[in-house]
Amino acid sequence: MALEIERKYLVDLEKLGTLENGSRIKQAYLSTNKDAVVRVRVKNDKAYLTIKGSNIGVTRLEFEYEIPLDEANEMLDKLCQKPVIDKTRYLITHENHIWELDIFYGENEGLVVVEVELSSEDETIILPSWVKEEVTTDARYYNSNLMKHPFKDWQK
Amino acid sequence: MALEIERKYLVDLEKLGTLENGSRIKQAYLSTNKDAVVRVRVKNDKAYLTIKGSNIGVTRLEFEYEIPLDEANEMLDKLCQKPVIDKTRYLITHENHIWELDIFYGENEGLVVVEVELSSEDETIILPSWVKEEVTTDARYYNSNLMKHPFKDWQK
Repeated sequence: MALEIERKYLVDLEKLGTLENGSRIKQAYLSTNKDAVVRVRVKNDKAYLTIKGSNIGVTRLEFEYEIPLDEANEMLDKLCQKPVIDKTRYLITHENHIWELDIFYGENEGLVVVEVELSSEDETIILPSWVKEEVTTDARYYNSNLMKHPFKDWQK
Repeated sequence: MALEIERKYLVDLEKLGTLENGSRIKQAYLSTNKDAVVRVRVKNDKAYLTIKGSNIGVTRLEFEYEIPLDEANEMLDKLCQKPVIDKTRYLITHENHIWELDIFYGENEGLVVVEVELSSEDETIILPSWVKEEVTTDARYYNSNLMKHPFKDWQK
């Protein structure tokens, strides 16, 4: 089963040590049709075009192609739906789990979230000291919603 | 100036000799958003993913990537908007012009059109004997409309 079970938390950056080896990610969508999502992602100096189908049960068709960096940047700039999601992702190992920490910029400046993948819904995890409240089920933090209603607009 | 000036005609296939070296083309769209069209095209044994922006004056951003044939066929089958446009294209030289002849199948079975590109709107061309009436300005023959309202439905 390819079902992903993830929990998402806010982060107290001041309690975290120095972060290293982050990957800068800029991504946006050419299409968010329900049948076929088309995403452009630049990750450091590599760029990718990704096509994802809709979920059929727990599976989802996905195709990814590496494309030239300058062309991806031109698509992000001129063809994609705005705003572009811009963040640095850090991978942090804590108690046998990999935690994916995202520090956002641009329209989502100020937002820092971390995700951890579990093997089952009732798996017990030991939370790092720098984790704040859980936001797994808060739809505002979904990637698709961070594009339509970015973090900066929440405070208005 | 990259402006394309094309004229489109119906064709009397019986007056044409044997056609050779055609390219079988199957294509459909992952997205037809006005800002970014995403097309999957299989041409003989090659496959391409093409992203086109909207026209800005006479220019239009376009990016094309070759992708694996089996993945393109899976996208045409499972992710693209239906029906898939299915045709064989032949290139015919006549009086110093290249005429692109398309014989359609599937939902557009029975339709045969030919297009010729001109260097100016008032350029005089010598029509081949196998050309019937001009349909350049008939919107039913636009590729986008052949997908939404295929030829077979015209006769109902």
